[in-house]
Amino acid sequence: MKIESVDFFYLSMPVVTTAADGSQDALVVRVAAGGHVGWGECEAAPLPSIAAFHCPMSHGACQPVAASVLGQVLAGPQDIARIAAAVAYNSMDLLQAAHTWSGIEMALWDLLGRARGVPAWQLLGYRQVWPKTPYASVLFGADAQETLTRAKDIRAQGFRAAKFGWAPFGASLRGDIAQLDAAREGLGPDGILLIDAGQIFGEDVEAAAARLDAMERNRVTFFEEPFHGHAYRAYGDLAGRTRTVRTAGGEAAHNRHMAEHLIDFGKVGFIQIDCGRIGGLGPAKQVADYAVQRGVTYINHTFTSNLALSASLQPFAGLRDHTICEFPTQTQPLARDLTLGSILPDADGLIHVPDGPGLGVEVNADALTRYAVDVEIRVAGRRLFPPVGADALTG
Amino acid sequence: MKIESVDFFYLSMPVVTTAADGSQDALVVRVAAGGHVGWGECEAAPLPSIAAFHCPMSHGACQPVAASVLGQVLAGPQDIARIAAAVAYNSMDLLQAAHTWSGIEMALWDLLGRARGVPAWQLLGYRQVWPKTPYASVLFGADAQETLTRAKDIRAQGFRAAKFGWAPFGASLRGDIAQLDAAREGLGPDGILLIDAGQIFGEDVEAAAARLDAMERNRVTFFEEPFHGHAYRAYGDLAGRTRTVRTAGGEAAHNRHMAEHLIDFGKVGFIQIDCGRIGGLGPAKQVADYAVQRGVTYINHTFTSNLALSASLQPFAGLRDHTICEFPTQTQPLARDLTLGSILPDADGLIHVPDGPGLGVEVNADALTRYAVDVEIRVAGRRLFPPVGADALTG
Repeated sequence: MKIESVDFFYLSMPVVTTAADGSQDALVVRVAAGGHVGWGECEAAPLPSIAAFHCPMSHGACQPVAASVLGQVLAGPQDIARIAAAVAYNSMDLLQAAHTWSGIEMALWDLLGRARGVPAWQLLGYRQVWPKTPYASVLFGADAQETLTRAKDIRAQGFRAAKFGWAPFGASLRGDIAQLDAAREGLGPDGILLIDAGQIFGEDVEAAAARLDAMERNRVTFFEEPFHGHAYRAYGDLAGRTRTVRTAGGEAAHNRHMAEHLIDFGKVGFIQIDCGRIGGLGPAKQVADYAVQRGVTYINHTFTSNLALSASLQPFAGLRDHTICEFPTQTQPLARDLTLGSILPDADGLIHVPDGPGLGVEVNADALTRYAVDVEIRVAGRRLFPPVGADALTG
Repeated sequence: MKIESVDFFYLSMPVVTTAADGSQDALVVRVAAGGHVGWGECEAAPLPSIAAFHCPMSHGACQPVAASVLGQVLAGPQDIARIAAAVAYNSMDLLQAAHTWSGIEMALWDLLGRARGVPAWQLLGYRQVWPKTPYASVLFGADAQETLTRAKDIRAQGFRAAKFGWAPFGASLRGDIAQLDAAREGLGPDGILLIDAGQIFGEDVEAAAARLDAMERNRVTFFEEPFHGHAYRAYGDLAGRTRTVRTAGGEAAHNRHMAEHLIDFGKVGFIQIDCGRIGGLGPAKQVADYAVQRGVTYINHTFTSNLALSASLQPFAGLRDHTICEFPTQTQPLARDLTLGSILPDADGLIHVPDGPGLGVEVNADALTRYAVDVEIRVAGRRLFPPVGADALTG
């Protein structure tokens, strides 16, 4: 079969705020080939990502993503890898291409799995999958008291693990210590406590290291993204100053090299991969294999819909010893409504990767209409988006 | 003064081909503040880059570039660094932001230099500048004979150094050896010969290494971009197998970390920085300082207009021992017409960084109209580009 069409759906909540909440909008991708359809989701700014697919060519190494995708043969996983290499080469000077391609790649695995009647994780090479302990991924409260309440609520909901992240963390050492103590208190002594600094320390190793004592005392399992995603030296320096806490990062990786470098040079203990940014499931699985070789734990990065969540679980579903997974619990209605049915913890509080064909998740057509953001792009008098003739599909 | 406006001009040749010729289109940026105007150029796909400036916010860490730039105070170089940090943080999940910001940052140095009546290199901290030996940057001929002719022509034009690049290099070992021999023959025994593989070998160290004998025999000074820009291990492995040839890379760096990693982990001998991608002059100067510390030679990467060329010379204009510079000689009329006057070799064949205020280059208003590509972007019924009220300026 050949890739006949790639359609983008820009969805948004009516109001988008500066909260570090990635579920406020979404860029959903539908790919059609050989009578089958697959779905994916870019973890990306929708407008620049749509532009990266449909833009005019600038030169041979700066072609739109469409040039390497439309009309391509899709017979098996090797074709997905081949198209990925073509995108990387033909769009090497188009920075946004990796984010655009990520959602398409995801949709190709979904489509191939549906066509063959097998889950994506099986196409990735796994024969058996294992449940994961989900950590509720939430933002810090505005103060320690609110974080305490939030942690207790999470525990009451049945979660054993929780990750607290972003502002106000990093604003003051004293405030951060109070936040860490509150999170541990609310989660209880046997809870798994994870912290996400959201790159707030830039490259300031001392500032990040000043939080380590309170983290070790509160038995924090990992300290995520203390620094800029490319600051490998800062990561490596901090890793050398920890006792029990391990560092985590990788969500910004937009190719597998970046994740591998964070392992090799940044010495992270946990590598966190967002399939909606790294180029989809293929490179994510390569990073999972690499992590196993290097004794590093792989975790998904996900803060959006169940479509993205399922995609993010596939690359490490077969790794028995990589036991925790990110599980967003505070998403916007858009992210919840995007799929029919939900991936929820079982009676033991564990998450299972879907076992249906492809990503095993059904997109809710109604949500595609309800949250739709109309986009029109014209260049040199020609309408590039929606592509001419596609109105019936995207409207 | 405060940044009042940022205007984008998408320019293009009437026909754009798949040639590796980055001068076929351009994204020019004009910034206004305090009654002054500055100009810059993104080395980037124009449409996604414009979208990255004007797109709706997705969340706090995925804001449009405009959110961190418009209305900001611009009193000195420290403000440029402050705004750069804000863009990196507020747009950390918007991949294209770095390319968009690069042209803006360039324009801010130009504006500040014009306001103070001093060249940008002086604002960057240099007191004295040194001329560079330009290498004519051209594409390989379709065959060895064409490359021989091209090399002779370059020499006849007065250039002592030349870089040959891209396809058909990499297609066959035998063909490549013939191309290398022809380039050396055409350039003469005392010419400086440089080779750019355009990432053709991906991560295949053996394939790249197979060309080393012919390179050493032809006294190639550097072997540029044998691999994917992030393939540090491949770079490092190849560097370990060279005798006299040194490796070069870095043009894809979209922040200073990437360039520093290519030095530290990829062991390149030459670090090539495109100011239109790395975030402008500020991070480029930081990389130049870093290169000096590490015994690596800094070179500009430029394949477009004299605006971009001037910008690219500023960060290493004061480094006496970093003697060669890239000098495009086969650009499209668009790139030539974009500025009034030209940066040309002097009687000794040397290139001088302009000593006028800012970037020292005047933009040709006529070219902005002649090559203009009309773009209109509407989101949710609202026109984002051209921004409402800007028609008179951009039309």
